[in-house]
Order: sequence, then C-alpha cells, then structure tokens
Amino acid sequence: MPGQSVLQTYRWQVESRLDALLPPSDEPPANLHAAMRYAVLGGGKRLRPLLAMASALAVGSPADSGLDVGCAAELVHCFSLIHDDLPAIDDDDLRRSRPTVHKKFNEAIAVLAGDALFALAFATLGHAGDPDRIARCLSSLSQATGGRGLVGGEVMDVEAEGGPVDIALLETIHSRKTGALISSSCEMGGIAGGGDEMECRTLALFGRELGLAFQIVDDILNETSSSEVLGKAAGTDRDKGKLTYPAAVGLEASKSEAEKALDRALGHLCQLEGETTVLEEIARACVVRDS
Amino acid sequence: MPGQSVLQTYRWQVESRLDALLPPSDEPPANLHAAMRYAVLGGGKRLRPLLAMASALAVGSPADSGLDVGCAAELVHCFSLIHDDLPAIDDDDLRRSRPTVHKKFNEAIAVLAGDALFALAFATLGHAGDPDRIARCLSSLSQATGGRGLVGGEVMDVEAEGGPVDIALLETIHSRKTGALISSSCEMGGIAGGGDEMECRTLALFGRELGLAFQIVDDILNETSSSEVLGKAAGTDRDKGKLTYPAAVGLEASKSEAEKALDRALGHLCQLEGETTVLEEIARACVVRDS
Repeated sequence: MPGQSVLQTYRWQVESRLDALLPPSDEPPANLHAAMRYAVLGGGKRLRPLLAMASALAVGSPADSGLDVGCAAELVHCFSLIHDDLPAIDDDDLRRSRPTVHKKFNEAIAVLAGDALFALAFATLGHAGDPDRIARCLSSLSQATGGRGLVGGEVMDVEAEGGPVDIALLETIHSRKTGALISSSCEMGGIAGGGDEMECRTLALFGRELGLAFQIVDDILNETSSSEVLGKAAGTDRDKGKLTYPAAVGLEASKSEAEKALDRALGHLCQLEGETTVLEEIARACVVRDS
Repeated sequence: MPGQSVLQTYRWQVESRLDALLPPSDEPPANLHAAMRYAVLGGGKRLRPLLAMASALAVGSPADSGLDVGCAAELVHCFSLIHDDLPAIDDDDLRRSRPTVHKKFNEAIAVLAGDALFALAFATLGHAGDPDRIARCLSSLSQATGGRGLVGGEVMDVEAEGGPVDIALLETIHSRKTGALISSSCEMGGIAGGGDEMECRTLALFGRELGLAFQIVDDILNETSSSEVLGKAAGTDRDKGKLTYPAAVGLEASKSEAEKALDRALGHLCQLEGETTVLEEIARACVVRDS
C-alpha cells in the first residue's frame, strides 16, 4: 500500500517538529516542561497533523506547509487529554499505555502543563505563513476549541453521563468534542497550503464528517476492545453510563453510521483539484482500525 | 483628578465589551457559560484592558482601538485566577469577595471554564485589526502566557513555596507570573492602535516594569491588609511560605523597590509621542492602592 510509506514519512516529520517546538526538559521550570514533553511525545496516532499535511497537499502545496498548523492542533489535542483525564473530570489512570500526567507527576502540574500546551499551540500558529493565513488559522483554531467547540463538548459529555439516550445531543457532543478540532486541522492545513476560501470550507466539511466517523469508531472500540490493545481503559463508557453510539443504537447500527459518515466525508473530496489520495487513505484508516 | 472620569468611562466600555464577548448563560452548556461569566464579570480592577486602551492612546489612536486586545488579556487573567485557585494549586476559597469558581460550581467546571476563557481570549484577538496586527498580537499574547510566561511563573511560584529566599528567582517568578501579561497588554494596545515596532517595544518595557511594581505591592498588601479589604484571603503568603518581596527584603525595602520599578516604568513613557498621561495615571494607581 503506497500510502503507508508516505504517512510514515509524515509521521516522522511530525515527531521531529513536536520535539523541536516543545521547551527542553532541562529548562526551568523543568517539571512543567518534562510533563509537557511526556504528554505530547508519548505516542499517539498523530491523526490531526497527518490530516493537516494531507490537506495542504489537497490544495496543491507540499505537505510540509501544513506541518506546523497540524502540530498546533496536536498540541491542543494533547492538552485536552491531560485535562479530561484529571480526577475531577474523567478520572483516568492510563493513557497511551502509560500513567496519565496527573498520575506520573501531580494534579497541579497536570492542570498547568495542559494550559502551557494550549498556549504553545497558539504560539505555533505564528508559523502558519503570512499574516493573513495566521489570522485565518487563529479564527479556526480558537473557535474549534472554546465553549462552543472542544471544551464545551467535554462539558456536555460529562453532564450527559447517566442521562437518557438522546441522539441529537450525542451528535452535538461528538461534533464539538471530536469533530471541531479534526475539522479545524483539515481547514488549517488548507489555509497554510494557500487554499482559497471554498477549498478550505470543503476541507472543514470533510473533517467534520470524518470526526464523527472517528468518534463513533472510538465508542465502538471502547465497548469491544481491550485496555491492552487500546492503551487506555476499555469498557469505561458503559461503566460510567456515557452517552455513546453503541449505547444509543447498538453495535451494528453504530458501524453502519460510521461507514455512512466516512462516505459523506469522502464525498466532499471530489470538489478539490489537488492530490486527495492521502486524505482518503487517512480517512479510511480512521474507520478500519483496532486502537 | 481628571484622569478618574476618563478611566471610569474606559471601565464601563470594558465591562460592556466583556459581557458581549462571553457566551450567554442560557446557551448550552449553560453551566460552563454561567461559570465563565461568574469568573469574568465578578468585579476586578480591569488593569490589563485599561492599560491596553491607554497604550493605544499613547501611540496616537483612540483608546477604543485597544479595547478588544485588552479584553483578551483580561480573559487570560481570569482564566489563570480560576486555575490558580484550584485545590491542587493554591486552594483558595475566596476571590473578589465571593466563592472561587470551583467552590461556587465544581472542580470539573472550574478547569473547563478556565480552558474555555483561554480559547475565548485568543478568539478575541481576531478583532485586533488587520491580519498583520492580529498576527503580532497572537505572538505577544501566546508568548506571555505559556511555559516561559504566565503558566511557567505559576509553576515556579508553587515550587518555590517553603524554599530558601532567592531574589533572582523571585524576580523571575514575578516577571513571568505578572509582568509578562501586563507587558503584553501594553504591547498589544500599541499594536492594535497602529504603533510601530519601536513604540510597541517601549510599551512592552513600560509594562514589564509596571508589572513588577504591581506584584511587589500585591505582596505587601497580602502581608499588611485584611481579607475584607482585599476581597481574597490575606496573610496567605506567609502561611504558605511563599517567596515574596516582604519575606525576602522586608516591608520598607519592598515599598522602595516598588517605587523604583514605577520610576523605571514611567521613564520609558517619554519616548512616546502620543498622549501618555492616562498611562501614567494608571501606573501610579498600581502602586498607591489599598486592594
């Protein structure tokens, strides 16, 4: 599969760039910087930067031009995982097969390392290109992350625990908690790659549908997989009474919903004139995966 | 004193703009939005937005042009107070004469409302003017808030508790924890007001010295004032063994250090060609205050 070696090359670029963006762990305050590096460099699929790079390619630019905005999205993703894992929120001890940040360090460092990664994400947008591209990326990322995006979705997710099954609410939660940042990753990749407004809008719509597909598969894996394979606790959604697709419509219908969302995502790609096979490759891998 | 009525007008503009920027508390997730509004609209000196507005004036523009970037800085300030007050960090129950956010709501909401305010701050920079000004403000604010700014200063502050007196470390903590954001508020006001690089650099230096003066006075008031006057717990620095100016050099020398920093701050203003009397008024009020 030719896509795999391309994606592997992108992944190396992402790891190396994230490492360079993070403050060295021997610079004071060393504990904070060590926690930031632990949270970010501890593995992960790097879905968001890969999407940003492939989106730059899809508007006719080299994939590298999407690297920094993709890393900004990844830093936001890592910040949100640290805070979501806190005892006061999801209270998770395991992430990427290792202790969560508040377990490895402490709660104060976990809160503040999350905050510092969030700030670093916005600082990284300063590399998005000319001021016009920077301003457009700032608008995209800040809207994707706030009370009406990622953070609002997390609140709604926590508040829906143990509540009645409500498909409309579930879609809103998934769209905010996962869809918004994945959508922004694609949009920012297009912006940094010099895409026009229509192309970037198309990439945002592609990302929104893909985010839904991705989250439905996450819900399914939490139900059907093991902690060993996932690298984080499995079966927790059911234990906590989380509002998920399998809880709402069952496993089979969930799989079918994920496939439908993937099809809708791929349907947007024909409107782009650049190279879209890498985006398609990544999108399919979001739905067919074990962890 | 003519400055007072000007500052009162600015303050009304700030309150009204913050109210408009915050999501309505009846919009879901209502709890999150209510907590964000509670944290931001519960009083406060509004020092950072006043400085941004007066800085715009000091580069020859109407003060209004600094309003939105000043509100962005205020949102960052409010986010940092929520997180600093958390049980895992400073564990404070009282802020601005009312229960802190985690006391009034809960810890999960406090963490996430802080995050959402941080995102809203960056979204607000989108109103800083043309893309060039937006990009410059993004660089200023993101650097002022990260591991090498506000958040890093908070970590160093917590880690220095109970440790030996170290004046160099104390200056670094104050410069990061308080100086960086106050400096950025002045710099961004200058940028949004169309100031050139030299003028904005001068405003940043003014803000850095003023931030130090302000924090020394904060240290003094924690030691000498009452919880009733301050609206937050007094005497806590000594109880916690915090590294402060009074602890390091005594009360009288602290007052003298604050005056010296104020003088250094004011010394920068003569390099600006616009109206600087309002900046001077604000600066003097930072040092001569009861709360």
